[in-house]
Amino acid sequence: MSLSDPLPSWNESQAKQSILDFVTRVATAGSRDYVPVNERIAVFDNDGTLWCEMPVPVQVFFICDRVRTTASKHPEWRRTEPFKSILAGDYRTAMATGTKGIVDLGMATHAGMTTDEFVLTVREWMAHAVHPQLKRPYTTAIYQPMFEVLSYMRSRGFSTFIVSGGGAEFMRVFAEDIYGVPPHQVIGSTIRTHFELRGGNPALVRDPSHDFFDDKIGKPVNINRFIGRRPIACFGNSDTDREMLLWTTLGRSDGRATLGVIVHHTDGQREFAYDREHVLSGQLDKGLDEAGEYGWIVADIKKDWKVVFPTAARPAQQSF
Amino acid sequence: MSLSDPLPSWNESQAKQSILDFVTRVATAGSRDYVPVNERIAVFDNDGTLWCEMPVPVQVFFICDRVRTTASKHPEWRRTEPFKSILAGDYRTAMATGTKGIVDLGMATHAGMTTDEFVLTVREWMAHAVHPQLKRPYTTAIYQPMFEVLSYMRSRGFSTFIVSGGGAEFMRVFAEDIYGVPPHQVIGSTIRTHFELRGGNPALVRDPSHDFFDDKIGKPVNINRFIGRRPIACFGNSDTDREMLLWTTLGRSDGRATLGVIVHHTDGQREFAYDREHVLSGQLDKGLDEAGEYGWIVADIKKDWKVVFPTAARPAQQSF
Repeated sequence: MSLSDPLPSWNESQAKQSILDFVTRVATAGSRDYVPVNERIAVFDNDGTLWCEMPVPVQVFFICDRVRTTASKHPEWRRTEPFKSILAGDYRTAMATGTKGIVDLGMATHAGMTTDEFVLTVREWMAHAVHPQLKRPYTTAIYQPMFEVLSYMRSRGFSTFIVSGGGAEFMRVFAEDIYGVPPHQVIGSTIRTHFELRGGNPALVRDPSHDFFDDKIGKPVNINRFIGRRPIACFGNSDTDREMLLWTTLGRSDGRATLGVIVHHTDGQREFAYDREHVLSGQLDKGLDEAGEYGWIVADIKKDWKVVFPTAARPAQQSF
Repeated sequence: MSLSDPLPSWNESQAKQSILDFVTRVATAGSRDYVPVNERIAVFDNDGTLWCEMPVPVQVFFICDRVRTTASKHPEWRRTEPFKSILAGDYRTAMATGTKGIVDLGMATHAGMTTDEFVLTVREWMAHAVHPQLKRPYTTAIYQPMFEVLSYMRSRGFSTFIVSGGGAEFMRVFAEDIYGVPPHQVIGSTIRTHFELRGGNPALVRDPSHDFFDDKIGKPVNINRFIGRRPIACFGNSDTDREMLLWTTLGRSDGRATLGVIVHHTDGQREFAYDREHVLSGQLDKGLDEAGEYGWIVADIKKDWKVVFPTAARPAQQSF
């Protein structure tokens, strides 16, 4: 590692070299693979790619805490799943209610307030919540090596976008502070909102109605809807990122050089180890089989990352 | 006008001075109204604000041309309104079919192809189409004074977004070339797309299904969905921009200084004069009454603009 190494938390490895080579090739004037700045679009999954998603994604912790905090206003929750199990501390039973249960939880905790009120609720929660196993604030449960990739790519003219199955308005509260990604470059799942005047003043109200699930085949759809341009680099960690990896790297009529990277969770000591087995979020099965075929780089956390989470001294990082 | 005047196509007027004052106040470090760069968001309507929308919006010309070009593949159109009237050159009858007719036209001309194919179709059309009255390519039927506002605000750290009732994917084909606004900062109406593999390669296919109408109350909803931050400046020209003007300028908990501007089409000689009377696009009635109450600036084209359209020599403008 030289002093000017833009990825100091990465061990010298094929993954690190592939990222450095790709960025240099597309961002160097005169290079055969040169790409103009306005086409240097990189997309990043969030849960499991930029920060920890185990044992459940951070937003699920938020939901559970909100259910407990607001339970006194909802006596019916004591008799209704999945609320009942969450209030009893039995997350396994709650999660076993599947998609319907999780959608019910999402609506109960993410709707029925203005957008401004929701932002304040998330900000307040995020300022105090701590990851139960990692024993650190969620805002520091981000992957230092990936933070370096974000910063490095931006320093070479890339626009970095988050494209996550998580809630867009949840992530937007902290993504600029912890990743340097502004709200309009955070794409995620959404519920509907409507405009109204309250006492003469405009408000946007969050309705308990599903809008768009930004996952799997929804990711390329939303990349087109929000970015309107095909990314040339894509970072994911699970099979739910497969379609956006395909959309980035395969069958392009513009012939652009592309980069696809899969973060492989191999380190049960420093983080969590998981891949082919079914998990609530983060299953990686097809992706491991297809990476070779499509030329996607697999970054092995155990072997490739010198550190996983930021240490206290991280001057490039704004405090939250 | 000094040599360093950032708005040389504007006459010295209250509107010009208000824009200059506002930008200076929010972009000058140490100013009482200083706003950090990442919150300097300005939104612009397109039709009638950034370019000409008379006698009908440019996208309507595109639709009519597409109906004629593809009519041989749709013999049923000879018997079906509004296609029948368009093929007969009777636009008045075609437009009288109202929203349903226009949606049918939109679906017939904007769906059933991949996103890549649609981009090529719009690009090809735009390269040759000429405004029937103005006798200039649509790409030069843009308002030079507003182009200067876009450039000036960007030079002072603003991010400029288009928020238009027009089709997002239609505008994105040319917005970067003619306005300097990249695709991900172009927000508009959308139809649904879906992801599929065609011969092993990923494709996004445009479906004949309405997704979102980015107009009136839809504008603040989409500003929140796409930008995720309240703009501090908003430029519009019709009552369909009212809700985004309210959302920008009224009842903010953050106390930010804001700017609302309405372009008033008063010049029947150099352009088109219209306001309170009903028109297909661009009616301005409520806005004229409310501007004083809400402190919105009315820019009077006849009095305030030295020139309306770009002259041949406009070095700041990329060729299309």
